Amino acid sequence: MKIDGQSYRSIWLDKENNSLVNIIDQRFLPHELKFVQLKTVDDAARAIKEMWVRGAPLIGITAAFGMYFATLEAKKDTDADTYIRKAAQKLLNTRPTAVNLQWAVKKQLCKIFEINDPSERIKNAFNLACQLKMEDIEVCRKIGKFGIELIEEISEKKAGKTVNILTHCNAGWLACVDWGTATSPMYQAHDKGIDIHVWVDETRPRNQGARLTAWELGEHGIPHTIITDNAGGHLMQHGMVDMCIVGTDRTTITGDVANKVGTYLKALAAKDNNVPFYVALPSSTIDWKIKDGIKDIPIEERDQDEVLSIIGLHEDEIKKVTLAPKKSQAKNYGFDVTPARLVTALITERGICEANETSIKQLFDKK
Amino acid sequence: MKIDGQSYRSIWLDKENNSLVNIIDQRFLPHELKFVQLKTVDDAARAIKEMWVRGAPLIGITAAFGMYFATLEAKKDTDADTYIRKAAQKLLNTRPTAVNLQWAVKKQLCKIFEINDPSERIKNAFNLACQLKMEDIEVCRKIGKFGIELIEEISEKKAGKTVNILTHCNAGWLACVDWGTATSPMYQAHDKGIDIHVWVDETRPRNQGARLTAWELGEHGIPHTIITDNAGGHLMQHGMVDMCIVGTDRTTITGDVANKVGTYLKALAAKDNNVPFYVALPSSTIDWKIKDGIKDIPIEERDQDEVLSIIGLHEDEIKKVTLAPKKSQAKNYGFDVTPARLVTALITERGICEANETSIKQLFDKK
Repeated sequence: MKIDGQSYRSIWLDKENNSLVNIIDQRFLPHELKFVQLKTVDDAARAIKEMWVRGAPLIGITAAFGMYFATLEAKKDTDADTYIRKAAQKLLNTRPTAVNLQWAVKKQLCKIFEINDPSERIKNAFNLACQLKMEDIEVCRKIGKFGIELIEEISEKKAGKTVNILTHCNAGWLACVDWGTATSPMYQAHDKGIDIHVWVDETRPRNQGARLTAWELGEHGIPHTIITDNAGGHLMQHGMVDMCIVGTDRTTITGDVANKVGTYLKALAAKDNNVPFYVALPSSTIDWKIKDGIKDIPIEERDQDEVLSIIGLHEDEIKKVTLAPKKSQAKNYGFDVTPARLVTALITERGICEANETSIKQLFDKK
Repeated sequence: MKIDGQSYRSIWLDKENNSLVNIIDQRFLPHELKFVQLKTVDDAARAIKEMWVRGAPLIGITAAFGMYFATLEAKKDTDADTYIRKAAQKLLNTRPTAVNLQWAVKKQLCKIFEINDPSERIKNAFNLACQLKMEDIEVCRKIGKFGIELIEEISEKKAGKTVNILTHCNAGWLACVDWGTATSPMYQAHDKGIDIHVWVDETRPRNQGARLTAWELGEHGIPHTIITDNAGGHLMQHGMVDMCIVGTDRTTITGDVANKVGTYLKALAAKDNNVPFYVALPSSTIDWKIKDGIKDIPIEERDQDEVLSIIGLHEDEIKKVTLAPKKSQAKNYGFDVTPARLVTALITERGICEANETSIKQLFDKK
């Protein structure tokens, strides 16, 4: 999507040198737009571990390019296979719970070990990384293609008046390669000339909404307003939200949705005020085995420091400030589960379906 | 309540000089505990306007002492009545929408103008300010007396195991003179030896939960944990909250409750998880005329800067940091309305009643 009028992706190959991969160091957004070149396995591992890149799809793609770097480096090593295996482990260790990371690294390992020739390995690993990247873009584009219909429907009902969409956290192009998941229908609607406005939950504690989603939308030219996570209920009570679209980190086969903590509260408010609540997802987030999201999806507990302090800009310098009393402790649950009964529908790359086992299986031809 | 083992109130007369009124300059909490002496009408007006003191009851009491200062100053003025009227106007202008402010200033004006003698006026204004202060303490104490029964009941059901209470914003002693409203049952339960633990919503944008409630509870020795405003739903889904107690700024005769924005979302989650949701209030917050809170209570819209930035401690200095992109705007609604159907009961100084017109009128003998 666009930054200051120019098209970007969250990860891209250098135009002049294919063995250089460019990323945005997202730690400094929205205060500073910083591009970084990754050249080695260590670069890729550090970028993932220190959250220069974040978001499940982008982590996967970055790791895939990391494995391509491994094949380049292995060519100079006496024991290439061991080198590649160690590189894989290094990448896997960066974010132990990230499913896409494991998926991408394992896919690369299979591909790489298919053959012995170092140059062929390099070519194959490069091609696979590029393929995974393009597939991610295509999945996100399709989510938008289906999702835009829901926005258009409301726009028509409102006779072209602004469609107000509420979103939580960042399920945007910065978390993927392009388009994003929850944001893809928004970008496509805006690009098609549909009048939309997005309410962006700031999404404490890490403020991905205020920091990333607001920045994304603003740079692309989409009208948006940041609100505290507390405000959405009031907006919905007063008819100021036409629909909610959020992402998901994990979706049960029954349609329960684990997403950034606070999503459940917005879904409750949407239900209470008859506002449709949509969840956008690539089918890769569907967990085909789990049936009860609240009971069976483990919720990551993160460092309390994220709640007790916050990072922001003070006189052109990025600083961390303490928000709470020294004597107080905090708890920091990263996600919550929104039960399927609160979800109006799921927007996937295959189409839109109801949040229940029958509909999901039907859409994906699984019985 | 206690600060570092010693008993305090949010406003108190100087022990040696009755014409000096001490307050805590709450702007620096929880990072710095700063006491300030008010000596003049201008002092009192500044303390209210610049939010050295905040919370409806404390604003009222501070204004009442401000009017006492007015009688002292008027004694030296050639046109005492005009001086007193101007002082009243100065105080009223500080926070135009604060109901308690108007109530306290008007009460003082009636009392002062009953007689002509300047010394008698001083005595009367002083006595009335003290009386209003003591009445506020008594009302809060009684709210706690009734509210503790609800906590005891749960404690018994749990065979003495920790009762987990969730609260939003600061309806604590810092907002009143002592005890607080929502916190009064908590202080009384803790002082009685009942094992309680409080989940404190940080309450963005002004973070009164993380800054004030957590500090209050910590200083008094009550176990508590700060959480983001997003986390309460997850806690309730997992049985980690036994009851919610919040305050209210305005309560309709039908039991709708206007409180700090985000309260409604917690009430929805409480309902969805069968967690009792109590609202503690002095009867002075009841609006006997309004029947539909969502339709008829005007919601204050505050400066967007409160959402776009935040104040905290950086290397022992209090600093403001920007959280959002420069191009983005924010909306900042200060309150939301929780409909009566989500409120389990109201805890008042007269006792506990259901959140409906019949029960409220019955409790207050109004037909």
